[in-house]
Amino acid sequence: MTQLTDRPAVPADTGVLPVIATDAIDAHSLGEYLLGTWSEARKHSRRLLLNSDFHFVDGLSVDDHRKRVLWQLGRLVEEGSVHRAYPKSVGGQEDHGGNIASFEELVLGDPSMQIKSGVQWGLFGAAVMHLGTERHHTRLLPDILSLKVPGAFAMTETGHGSDVASIGTTATFDEFTDEFILHTPFRAAWKDYLGNAALHGRAAVVFAQLITKGVNHGVHAFYVPIRDNKGFLPGIGGEDDGIKGGLNGIDNGRLHFDSVRVPRENLLNRYGDVDENGDYSSPIDSPGRRFFTMLGTLVQGRVSLDGAAVVASKAALTIAIRYGSERRQFTGGDVNEEVLLDYGRHQRRLLPRLAQTYAMSFAHEVFLTAFDGVFSGRTDTDQDREDLETIAAALKPLSTWAALDILQESREACGGAGFLAENRLTQLRADLDIYATFEGDNNVLLQLVAKRLLTDYSRSFAKADAGALASYVAAQVGEATYHRSGLRQLAQNVADFGSTARSVGYVRDAASQRQLLTDRVHTMVATLAGKLRPAQKMSKPEAAALFNRHQNELIEAARAHGELLQWEAFTDALDGIPDPSTKQVLTWLRDLFGLGLIEKNLAWYLIHGRLSAQRAEAITAYIDDRLLPRLRPHALALTDAFGFAPEHLRSAIATGAEGVRQDEARSYYADLLASGTAPVPEKKPRR
Amino acid sequence: MTQLTDRPAVPADTGVLPVIATDAIDAHSLGEYLLGTWSEARKHSRRLLLNSDFHFVDGLSVDDHRKRVLWQLGRLVEEGSVHRAYPKSVGGQEDHGGNIASFEELVLGDPSMQIKSGVQWGLFGAAVMHLGTERHHTRLLPDILSLKVPGAFAMTETGHGSDVASIGTTATFDEFTDEFILHTPFRAAWKDYLGNAALHGRAAVVFAQLITKGVNHGVHAFYVPIRDNKGFLPGIGGEDDGIKGGLNGIDNGRLHFDSVRVPRENLLNRYGDVDENGDYSSPIDSPGRRFFTMLGTLVQGRVSLDGAAVVASKAALTIAIRYGSERRQFTGGDVNEEVLLDYGRHQRRLLPRLAQTYAMSFAHEVFLTAFDGVFSGRTDTDQDREDLETIAAALKPLSTWAALDILQESREACGGAGFLAENRLTQLRADLDIYATFEGDNNVLLQLVAKRLLTDYSRSFAKADAGALASYVAAQVGEATYHRSGLRQLAQNVADFGSTARSVGYVRDAASQRQLLTDRVHTMVATLAGKLRPAQKMSKPEAAALFNRHQNELIEAARAHGELLQWEAFTDALDGIPDPSTKQVLTWLRDLFGLGLIEKNLAWYLIHGRLSAQRAEAITAYIDDRLLPRLRPHALALTDAFGFAPEHLRSAIATGAEGVRQDEARSYYADLLASGTAPVPEKKPRR
Repeated sequence: MTQLTDRPAVPADTGVLPVIATDAIDAHSLGEYLLGTWSEARKHSRRLLLNSDFHFVDGLSVDDHRKRVLWQLGRLVEEGSVHRAYPKSVGGQEDHGGNIASFEELVLGDPSMQIKSGVQWGLFGAAVMHLGTERHHTRLLPDILSLKVPGAFAMTETGHGSDVASIGTTATFDEFTDEFILHTPFRAAWKDYLGNAALHGRAAVVFAQLITKGVNHGVHAFYVPIRDNKGFLPGIGGEDDGIKGGLNGIDNGRLHFDSVRVPRENLLNRYGDVDENGDYSSPIDSPGRRFFTMLGTLVQGRVSLDGAAVVASKAALTIAIRYGSERRQFTGGDVNEEVLLDYGRHQRRLLPRLAQTYAMSFAHEVFLTAFDGVFSGRTDTDQDREDLETIAAALKPLSTWAALDILQESREACGGAGFLAENRLTQLRADLDIYATFEGDNNVLLQLVAKRLLTDYSRSFAKADAGALASYVAAQVGEATYHRSGLRQLAQNVADFGSTARSVGYVRDAASQRQLLTDRVHTMVATLAGKLRPAQKMSKPEAAALFNRHQNELIEAARAHGELLQWEAFTDALDGIPDPSTKQVLTWLRDLFGLGLIEKNLAWYLIHGRLSAQRAEAITAYIDDRLLPRLRPHALALTDAFGFAPEHLRSAIATGAEGVRQDEARSYYADLLASGTAPVPEKKPRR
Repeated sequence: MTQLTDRPAVPADTGVLPVIATDAIDAHSLGEYLLGTWSEARKHSRRLLLNSDFHFVDGLSVDDHRKRVLWQLGRLVEEGSVHRAYPKSVGGQEDHGGNIASFEELVLGDPSMQIKSGVQWGLFGAAVMHLGTERHHTRLLPDILSLKVPGAFAMTETGHGSDVASIGTTATFDEFTDEFILHTPFRAAWKDYLGNAALHGRAAVVFAQLITKGVNHGVHAFYVPIRDNKGFLPGIGGEDDGIKGGLNGIDNGRLHFDSVRVPRENLLNRYGDVDENGDYSSPIDSPGRRFFTMLGTLVQGRVSLDGAAVVASKAALTIAIRYGSERRQFTGGDVNEEVLLDYGRHQRRLLPRLAQTYAMSFAHEVFLTAFDGVFSGRTDTDQDREDLETIAAALKPLSTWAALDILQESREACGGAGFLAENRLTQLRADLDIYATFEGDNNVLLQLVAKRLLTDYSRSFAKADAGALASYVAAQVGEATYHRSGLRQLAQNVADFGSTARSVGYVRDAASQRQLLTDRVHTMVATLAGKLRPAQKMSKPEAAALFNRHQNELIEAARAHGELLQWEAFTDALDGIPDPSTKQVLTWLRDLFGLGLIEKNLAWYLIHGRLSAQRAEAITAYIDDRLLPRLRPHALALTDAFGFAPEHLRSAIATGAEGVRQDEARSYYADLLASGTAPVPEKKPRR
């Protein structure tokens, strides 16, 4: 295999490396590496997805799409694809990482199928598993797993998206009948946006304020039958959420309860129970800790959205880069016979996003490993759980936003062809839109990360402030998950940047990239901690106003932290690549990601004296003149490594047809010129 | 009316101005002002749009949606809404500005209706009007205006989007039969993405290489019947483009021609004709100039997309800001009873985009005025036409991209509710997606702007280089429109920024904002001209590579130029606002727009020594601590000024229902607390 490092230097006159076909990347091994620890589970799903049963069909009505996706869930049951995470007692494998890995890949079939199966087995069923106890598992899980009982996960209310602790639905214990009475006290407390609620759901796990003997013990989950063959059960009402911007294969809807009675045993009682006398008990004393322990069992939604965003980004870039490798923009001229991807702008549009996708993919593997460790019980200390929550809150926003950006840029990079449904990009984007909102609004999640960063900072550097800082951010966010040690490898000593080497060579170095990225997170957090310190001595409204004033900065600090996590994951992953030339290309790609982050925040580095103006300019030049030309010849191989079959992409422009057409057109013009008998188009007019 | 300038200063401890209901904005007069010169035409369309006939209906099949939109076009004919731009001889008013203004507003009904009527009367009919002569007008326009003959505008080919000069379709004159033979020589030369082509079109204006006596005279337009009641006419073939990411009310499709004969008179012969002997003549000698004169008549597509993007942005922000003014994020706490728009992050998300929308709106009015001047013949020198092309190429990309960004941020700012079709945002975004591509791909258009900037620069500063520079950019872009004087008021003397006042006060000043923005455009262009100068002495491939290497910078310079145009338009518009308090609020909004542009490009200003680190930081602080709190109380009024009726918005969350629900919830909790008899939810858990 050719050593890329032995290639001739970039010609000084143009700075552009000639495009060369290359076998420098061992795409097969790289592909295996990208599939990660749970590659078998991913391959299982990818094999299933070769079957058109699991494919989205364009142009179905909403009704037919919903029917098809329900049918697809039944097919998943038939294929034995839904049990993986469940207890062995009900036929499962207790394989949490593998379950998520296989589930994420379903986005390639139809995101509606992915999310509806997530509602059924990742939320509704998982709530019974994690929040219920043996009696629920035995009685309920078999019908949930077989899809005999499709169910809704009734947490969100119309009036409460991110603030679960403040939901309005009540579950009041009636000791005379030994029942809970589920009730919706006002319109804003209707359960809303629930998959399976509009049509298919026979039951729901309903989150409500548990009230017994006049005391509210906070939010608990209840198993509530909602429908039989004839429709809603007495006391249950609801509405269809109607057509959505995407995911129309899912029957999202609203539910409300008019004094609906369920047996006491329907309380999912792992973390809180009520006895026949109406006395409440819980293995966790603190109501706050209890609440967040319950919510913490549901982190898998965030894991799988992060992973699905990575899969969709890989598919979009494969489509756009294949098209860009064949499509010629202008065939009239003589010097412009390059394909789109030879243009500097086109490389700027797609290659940094390819680098970002690799970073997201490696970061997701770290995330999934942490998730599997906690859920398998191998590494599930409180700190592990808190770290997992922080990783989730940092990575899910970045990847779901990135997927939307990547899908859109890919669409535009394919021009009008990108807008046709037959090329896949628009529908994926429409479906993934809401990934930025559900399972935790991205902006709210990033505030959780910021809170963790501040807590860590305060603990390390100014212990007295920790509680005050954390509680204010928590109040802003409403989901005061308790965290420690979220600051990833903060550089304690910022190097003297002014005195290090002045050439661009400095920033190419991984250690320097790490230092620049880490120092930025650290400095942002420290600065914020200082700005927020006066809050301790303020009245509540004043303190709230102070935090509010810095809310945007808090979120930007959290974003910087998440980007650092991605960069670290990418850098760590390089060590696992044995082939030196593949490793060289991936190192360039990592550099493109790292320098891209620094370039994006260049003003910060300049203002804070971390980079000189000269070096700052050199970063952009290095990206344009060196990294993009070096990576361009490997762009196709880097997407080949994603390993998608035509049945996964199902994109007409990713099949090579464009290249065939271009060749046909060129041969037409060549014949005209050779024969000398026919008119040929005049040269492009020039003034 | 209260003078905002008399309001109390921002409290020093928090920097946050209390939110006050305000009557400081004369929303009615501001609304009239925003409607601009052609307000009557806009109002005509807005009145029509009160009628549900013109509304998009959720959930229609593609077939039914296409039928409905065709029917809506018939309704527009009945309402006398399609003739405005046409000659008085066929019942028109020759009102070009008013025609575009009324057409833009149709986006509020259904973007498919807007674009399909644009295809029929703005492209197909307009090509007959502008490229044809009296014989075509008399014979063809009445049926086009009445919709008896729906037609396609057959310019784009599968293999040629932006490069019209290189299309493959030929029209070869046969002097024996006095006919042109339209022919598609290879698959990539199929006409593609044409509205009306898949189903409804009876004729098409087909762009083809005109060949007579063995000579190719370049691209000309031909009127070609394509269908009768029974389907395609002999020799014509085609395909349906199928489902798209949006605009599914339009029957886009492909056409190809197998030696299809049309009479010689079907050549639209205003700019080029062939006599019965096959001799070619044209009033314009230069083939290049002829080509671009023909294309120039079609600039109205870009004008109207720019305007429609502004209208859609206004609608999106009205919805999001109304929702953000009612929705409370967390009702559990006691200090966080603010509505969403009181949060710093939420303001950062929406208010700069509101400022941008105002800038886009005022810039569009400038654009439309220039367009009307040229098309009415009042101001139509070559330079006027060239200036118009440059404005179009600069503004259409910025506004169509901004609309997508604004629609998406508005969707996310409305959370799950934003994703429901009943709230309008997702469908508008899906439809407007392709506005970034059609009527000139945004990246290609910005390269045209860059070329103009370089030409102007070279002419002003280094005459010898003008031709070389321009032709290279032209070769890159493929549409060598000839321009002069595109550089808008370039500051010839960059002030000594180092010695001016050091406080943030400096950048609040309009003259300073102008200087910073203008200087950046100027410096970027001058730097690029210097970098590209060696191209003159290079071989063609070397020179192409050099330009390619700087392609990204060229586009960024063009973007900076377009942003300056928007800022200038906003600033000029302030002079037309008589009410001082309205003017004060709008001045803050302009400052937010201007400082936002500078903040976005802060690294550039720092690297080039235009701003000190201290002042750079002060800009962000000034936006967060002063401008956003000052503008927040006026956000609703600033969207009220857009003047949308409920029938225009048709968004469930923009009706005030959210506020009613919030009040109901609060009153429930207040009753519980007052009665002291019922359990209340415990306080949000805190650690």
